[in-house]
Amino acid sequence: MTTTSPTWIDGVPSAALPLPDRAFAYGDGVFETFLLRNGRLVLRDLHLERLAIGLTCLRMPAALPLAQQTLDTVVQSLDTTIEGYAALRLTVTRGGGPRGYAPPQDTPPRIVISVSDLQHDPLAFAAPAALGETAVRWGKQPLLAGIKHLNRLEQVLAAADAVDAGVDEVLMLDQSGAPLSVAAGNLFMVAGKRLLTPILVDGGIAGTRRRLLLDHLAAACGLQAAEVRLQLHQLLAAKEVFYCNALIGLRAVGTFRDRSWSDHSATRLLHTAYCEWLDR
Amino acid sequence: MTTTSPTWIDGVPSAALPLPDRAFAYGDGVFETFLLRNGRLVLRDLHLERLAIGLTCLRMPAALPLAQQTLDTVVQSLDTTIEGYAALRLTVTRGGGPRGYAPPQDTPPRIVISVSDLQHDPLAFAAPAALGETAVRWGKQPLLAGIKHLNRLEQVLAAADAVDAGVDEVLMLDQSGAPLSVAAGNLFMVAGKRLLTPILVDGGIAGTRRRLLLDHLAAACGLQAAEVRLQLHQLLAAKEVFYCNALIGLRAVGTFRDRSWSDHSATRLLHTAYCEWLDR
Repeated sequence: MTTTSPTWIDGVPSAALPLPDRAFAYGDGVFETFLLRNGRLVLRDLHLERLAIGLTCLRMPAALPLAQQTLDTVVQSLDTTIEGYAALRLTVTRGGGPRGYAPPQDTPPRIVISVSDLQHDPLAFAAPAALGETAVRWGKQPLLAGIKHLNRLEQVLAAADAVDAGVDEVLMLDQSGAPLSVAAGNLFMVAGKRLLTPILVDGGIAGTRRRLLLDHLAAACGLQAAEVRLQLHQLLAAKEVFYCNALIGLRAVGTFRDRSWSDHSATRLLHTAYCEWLDR
Repeated sequence: MTTTSPTWIDGVPSAALPLPDRAFAYGDGVFETFLLRNGRLVLRDLHLERLAIGLTCLRMPAALPLAQQTLDTVVQSLDTTIEGYAALRLTVTRGGGPRGYAPPQDTPPRIVISVSDLQHDPLAFAAPAALGETAVRWGKQPLLAGIKHLNRLEQVLAAADAVDAGVDEVLMLDQSGAPLSVAAGNLFMVAGKRLLTPILVDGGIAGTRRRLLLDHLAAACGLQAAEVRLQLHQLLAAKEVFYCNALIGLRAVGTFRDRSWSDHSATRLLHTAYCEWLDR
């Protein structure tokens, strides 16, 4: 299967990555997946804030200005007269260098950008999702928790379980059995006037839409947001459950195990606030 | 810094990896680092056994015959008249495919092989190592423990600490604070007639030299080998400590914290048995 995604390596159109590359060898780098709207980045600053944190965690903070500059140059070259949505992936790898785990001292990072079509409308309120289960749990690794680095095997295997089960997404637990996220998004639940999401101290990715919900959208909808150690029984007892990421926005959960949810009013309210936020 | 390592992609000489590639995107694949001796693979079968386990864990067992065939073809093309040692890295990635964590159904895996010079004699008994410390611990992830997959950020950051501290290696602990390995090798200690190594149920890589020590070399040297939950105080009280990997063989530890070891007689004995095993 081939994918025809326009790709740039260090700002130059190319889909041929020079080897060796430490992202290929060790997953040594970070990435961001942006929603592109009419050729422009959505919530650019939130993504770049997370990118900065990730690069610092990986001890390559100097790559940030290069990544930002390359990103902006590539985005400016896109055709903004084409209306609609696409996905843009920005990958920052530690670059080449000799064999071995130790990061080379004098190798420049490499910036890889690719753009893919989206098959859905990311601002539509999609049909409530069927949420399945997976035996694949998040590893416990406080050092890398929240970071969108390139070591993503856990989510790959969880997403494979979702495909096998024919569900839209799967609930991923942490090592203690507590809900942490879905395979490709952050998890939220509504309980009365509270909006709760798992705290990401041991694993998970700190999503940009999660950030926006916690910092702005919850309050705008009269909800009190909090990061907590969520338990499975709380999720099953929740008034509403949804998940979110950059490319799907907010998606209500309709079913999980023998539980089903038909009232999605708070999720709809948050979704409306989300769409309005992007229109500002 | 450029590295001139001959590289083959799917058996064809090339150092240009076609993107998208899931090893690049998610670390979605496994690898092996072989010692090459006069152009021939050392302990090939032990490596392929581990590769098979890793591919099964990543739910791509069908890639094994392709990887093996490509490996053998490339190795047969090497010049065996050149005496000496080199490193050969075999990487099996899940290949290309569309955006998203879920593995594509019909994308063939990709086999990438590269050969690098070795700057040292891998069968020499090297000077005892200075072992340092790192705050980077292994994540707890039983599902992937032992597998030599491409998600190696923890070891990258630990190896960076070794470089920064000017030591030969660093001791990596698990999430509970128990010794698990060094950044690029398995850890062993000698206590009386016992040869102990950390059990790899929560993390770590099940090294080929570790396997050989446990299955053959310990008994050949009159030692009783066991995989255990090792504690730091046991390591500090050990008669001898060493670590091992494919490219350095066995290396004695000379110092750690304020502890130093000058007697390496059991390690030397095991090292001799190791060299003899490779000569069989």
